[in-house]
Amino acid sequence: MHELRKDPLLQRWVVVLSDDSKPPSFYCADRRRGIPPRAPCPLCEIGDDAVEIFRIPNSDPARPPRVRVIANNHPILQVEGSLGRRGIGMYDAMNGIGASEIVIESPTHDVEPDERRTDNLSLVLETYRMRIEDLQKDMRLRYVLVFKNHGRAAGAVYDHPHSQIVATPITPRAVKDELYGARTHFGLKERCVFCDILREERRAGSRVIAENRDFIAFVPYAPRFPFEIWILPNEHQYSFVSLKSEQTPNLASIISLCTGKLGAVLEDPPYNMVLHTSPNKVPRPGHWQTLDDDYHWHIELLPNLLTHAGFEWGSGFHVLATTPEDAARYLREAR
Amino acid sequence: MHELRKDPLLQRWVVVLSDDSKPPSFYCADRRRGIPPRAPCPLCEIGDDAVEIFRIPNSDPARPPRVRVIANNHPILQVEGSLGRRGIGMYDAMNGIGASEIVIESPTHDVEPDERRTDNLSLVLETYRMRIEDLQKDMRLRYVLVFKNHGRAAGAVYDHPHSQIVATPITPRAVKDELYGARTHFGLKERCVFCDILREERRAGSRVIAENRDFIAFVPYAPRFPFEIWILPNEHQYSFVSLKSEQTPNLASIISLCTGKLGAVLEDPPYNMVLHTSPNKVPRPGHWQTLDDDYHWHIELLPNLLTHAGFEWGSGFHVLATTPEDAARYLREAR
Repeated sequence: MHELRKDPLLQRWVVVLSDDSKPPSFYCADRRRGIPPRAPCPLCEIGDDAVEIFRIPNSDPARPPRVRVIANNHPILQVEGSLGRRGIGMYDAMNGIGASEIVIESPTHDVEPDERRTDNLSLVLETYRMRIEDLQKDMRLRYVLVFKNHGRAAGAVYDHPHSQIVATPITPRAVKDELYGARTHFGLKERCVFCDILREERRAGSRVIAENRDFIAFVPYAPRFPFEIWILPNEHQYSFVSLKSEQTPNLASIISLCTGKLGAVLEDPPYNMVLHTSPNKVPRPGHWQTLDDDYHWHIELLPNLLTHAGFEWGSGFHVLATTPEDAARYLREAR
Repeated sequence: MHELRKDPLLQRWVVVLSDDSKPPSFYCADRRRGIPPRAPCPLCEIGDDAVEIFRIPNSDPARPPRVRVIANNHPILQVEGSLGRRGIGMYDAMNGIGASEIVIESPTHDVEPDERRTDNLSLVLETYRMRIEDLQKDMRLRYVLVFKNHGRAAGAVYDHPHSQIVATPITPRAVKDELYGARTHFGLKERCVFCDILREERRAGSRVIAENRDFIAFVPYAPRFPFEIWILPNEHQYSFVSLKSEQTPNLASIISLCTGKLGAVLEDPPYNMVLHTSPNKVPRPGHWQTLDDDYHWHIELLPNLLTHAGFEWGSGFHVLATTPEDAARYLREAR
């Protein structure tokens, strides 16, 4: 089983792939030749050994299911086992318990026409919602992270449209930081900081990319990456699980619109998509409990355009080579 | 002048290159062709417009200086001007004040034989110390970050041996996190957490790579990157400025040894080097004041081997494909 370890200085957990520790040649080979595409695509033809967790069938049962979720066969966190929290000298460790799932977003390998893609994305979003709800029942798990890597340079291992779900036994640090910030703001203002940001962005206008009845997409005032986009529900919702069925098509269409604009402006850039929702709400003593009032789920689109170098790693600063206002203007004007 | 902006959720500052905001084509071109090496090398032949800040001359005045520090002609933070802290709607901004310097580590473009390289590295380390001392006198500045990008994939713009110094008007978040962790540990134990880690690593032994009279190099128990290396002074020193002249050669030799081992094991990998020292100590109300007891300067060597993808950005977790013990063994055994 893999291992989770905690840094004693920063209280930051890392995942150590202790069951599959790689020799140096692993990294050198990757650097030399890049990761070759696999033929046949393992997500087009799923092997008999694949564990299917969930599916949305096709109305014609002779055709493959529209969306499928399978267990990752190289899981970084595994479902079976106990947490096994332990001390090792002055350090802390636990077992790599959690879940690693792959969402196969479409039965077809190649990108589909816009209309069908948006249609299918609604089903993918419903799938996320149902998987989060299901995984939140597991008392060992604290958080369910949904994310997508698009393009090899952004970490995608397959070219087939897919995203991933990783459930963790610890609320991830990036989420804790948001929860802490949101709670601090709520303590000062008695208002949700995301609702405040949403109103401020609408007032300023210069960073807004698109809006519909239920959602707004904008470049944040102080993002990490050039051309970063956040998508927020207009209505205050702390958890993605509260997404209403009638809102799903509007979310799908604003995501499609934004990824289409990124593709048009930046020539199909590598990017990551992250869904940030509130942590699992099963009561657990001593850990983050979200108030329904002080968190607001959202989607972050993170284009991978610049190298994170010594200054960024050493300081935690991010450098934006394009201003958020310029980025928003390019994206707004793109078709 | 560039702008610093603060994220209202995470209180994280970012640097916006507002005076030189890039169009989308800037990123697309880089992705297509990579950054070409510049000929002639601008650090071999420094132009007349370069502002020299510091030099260590050669004993033979006819030969070029052994180490030179010049102002970065594309500074991300500039020395001239006032901080100009201001609110913009609900957001916070200030001017991009600070310093951006390039340390030319050697007059020769190509890597030198080990012995001379170590010798020259001592002078480079002395240069860091003197530049930090000098920049700490500026009351507007809170921190001086020294770092090195080695290899294009780790963000190096020049092939010539060089490192960088960026002084910031805010203590960087990565440093604040360490200060907070160290202070929390000190509050609980009345001991420096770095001294505790140093003793624990020596006791365990499995992650130690090298030691000499003054320094120890080891792979941390829960690092961010496979083959990450930390170098700590054995003696408790909160600030790099306290480094004694007689310790410098030992620091140079252990750094050379470690980068040599990284090069041997991982075929000259791209890496970043970061020097973390205590923040500027000029008293400033309401900001981090280090106690001499609870911080410990150190050097971090961060090989750039894996893609930081959606899971990492969305969660803040890092995934180690090689265990720290295996990495340390490969590095220890390398010659």
